[in-house]
Amino acid sequence: MSKIAVVGTGLIGQGWAAVFAQAGFEVAMYDASQEAAQSALKAMAKRIDDLAEFDLIEPSDGPNVLKRITIASSLEDALDRAIYVQENGPENVDIKTEITQALDALAATDVPIGSSTSGISASRYCEHIPGRHRCFVVHPINPPHLHPAVEIVPTPWTDQNAISRVNELMIKCGRETIVLSEEIDGFVVNRLQGALLEEAFKLVGSGIVSAEDLDKAICDGLGLRWSIMGPMQTIHLNAPGGVIDYVARYGNMYRGFGIGSYEGVDWASVAKDKLAAEMAERTPVAKIPEAQIARDRKLMALLRHKAQSRANT
Amino acid sequence: MSKIAVVGTGLIGQGWAAVFAQAGFEVAMYDASQEAAQSALKAMAKRIDDLAEFDLIEPSDGPNVLKRITIASSLEDALDRAIYVQENGPENVDIKTEITQALDALAATDVPIGSSTSGISASRYCEHIPGRHRCFVVHPINPPHLHPAVEIVPTPWTDQNAISRVNELMIKCGRETIVLSEEIDGFVVNRLQGALLEEAFKLVGSGIVSAEDLDKAICDGLGLRWSIMGPMQTIHLNAPGGVIDYVARYGNMYRGFGIGSYEGVDWASVAKDKLAAEMAERTPVAKIPEAQIARDRKLMALLRHKAQSRANT
Repeated sequence: MSKIAVVGTGLIGQGWAAVFAQAGFEVAMYDASQEAAQSALKAMAKRIDDLAEFDLIEPSDGPNVLKRITIASSLEDALDRAIYVQENGPENVDIKTEITQALDALAATDVPIGSSTSGISASRYCEHIPGRHRCFVVHPINPPHLHPAVEIVPTPWTDQNAISRVNELMIKCGRETIVLSEEIDGFVVNRLQGALLEEAFKLVGSGIVSAEDLDKAICDGLGLRWSIMGPMQTIHLNAPGGVIDYVARYGNMYRGFGIGSYEGVDWASVAKDKLAAEMAERTPVAKIPEAQIARDRKLMALLRHKAQSRANT
Repeated sequence: MSKIAVVGTGLIGQGWAAVFAQAGFEVAMYDASQEAAQSALKAMAKRIDDLAEFDLIEPSDGPNVLKRITIASSLEDALDRAIYVQENGPENVDIKTEITQALDALAATDVPIGSSTSGISASRYCEHIPGRHRCFVVHPINPPHLHPAVEIVPTPWTDQNAISRVNELMIKCGRETIVLSEEIDGFVVNRLQGALLEEAFKLVGSGIVSAEDLDKAICDGLGLRWSIMGPMQTIHLNAPGGVIDYVARYGNMYRGFGIGSYEGVDWASVAKDKLAAEMAERTPVAKIPEAQIARDRKLMALLRHKAQSRANT
């Protein structure tokens, strides 16, 4: 049974421990505060129980999952035999530098060191670390065990082989990986969230709509579709000719709203050059009608699920 | 049993017919093409069956729901006794003007005339219509019967009483209404979608990420939360002190991404002046920890639902 080290045992570290242990890995949790580590271990029991309650792990498997998680008394112990290190330290460049230096000094050669940071590109703290080729961002969404999406973000020095191995490891852990080609501030998840929030703050700030009504636009509207399929697949299915057709029909309307950056992006070129082939491979234009039917069936199943959840609470 | 007129029988009109008939209203559908109207009526049977299959209406109630929907042979007949008119014509200002003039001439005094337009503010076509006080946008998300969210957008001349009556009618039909204080291009739903798409096109266009991986960031990440709660409630629960604390912690990070409009919006002022009181009323800061637990339970229930859906297809 391979071992993974989880360094930092706050909510993010605890979520990762659940993800790795569920996938059958031995998990060594380490925290500079032993007290924090011990209370994290206690919290894990509740987390695993919750997952079993919702059929996300076999109830009979719960005790085994929990047994795979231990607290290491030192960083050395945590890293001993570890095939991967997930670092969950504070969001501060100096602290990240210090922790990553220590991890690089102790971890066996070529063991990848992934950081859960949501805001700090790894090149900002690992440039002068000897093992910088194995240091990069592996960013979950909080809480990690309840969101399959994980972003993998290489620095200019990252070894491609380390990226591939962590990508495979994450897929083995049931994660849906988003692999970026290079670093960009905020990565993908928080850039998309930030873009939506910028417009949301503008609309609420100008008094056009209340926050409560704005929230309905998402959780009773766009968010229903987006929990089933992403925004690109959504628009690909919303025009008879797929994504190029969608942009031809609606691109000017959207661009007329005056949202987005000052220069703007040419949606039509992106649709033609970057999107059309990939989207057609996922759903050929001729299959869009049946994909729409499948989408609507998923929407109905989701609405039934939401109605039942409401009835049960 | 009150009657509602649905004018234009494409997919949007059909979705509305299902919504109104499910809520117990008599629905008269009218289309300039009788052939289109007849085939829409045929399609309704399948739609109602689907809703029954997913427990969204009582299976035994299906035939009754279907019986409430009829095809009117003329616009006069459709509007006769109607307490509300939902117009679903083509997205073209001239055509909207012509249709709305006809509807205003035939509908009884003060019967509200709502348009399903997703892109045309009603003031652009109703300014010179005698009954402009009762013409405004009532915008669903396609397909209307599978998304509870509905935007209600007044023109400068709209009678507040008409807005209130349509808002109540929509709530009676199980809709989650988003009431705007004034017109803005794209309303709320499509402005939020457009802001996210602008960033998505930028990221895919620059080669940072594939469309498939970008879609995962939403449907396996942010979209899961957003199908449970909107973006404002999401951030309110993601900092110990609520929304003001969230903006203090992360606002600069987001603004540093360089997304959003050239001038930008001051998130901190909006959080303080517009959001804090409303969000605290929805979830007092002291209750955030228990709201987080409730959110995580909903996330687990959603993950179970998605896993079961996958297993069944």
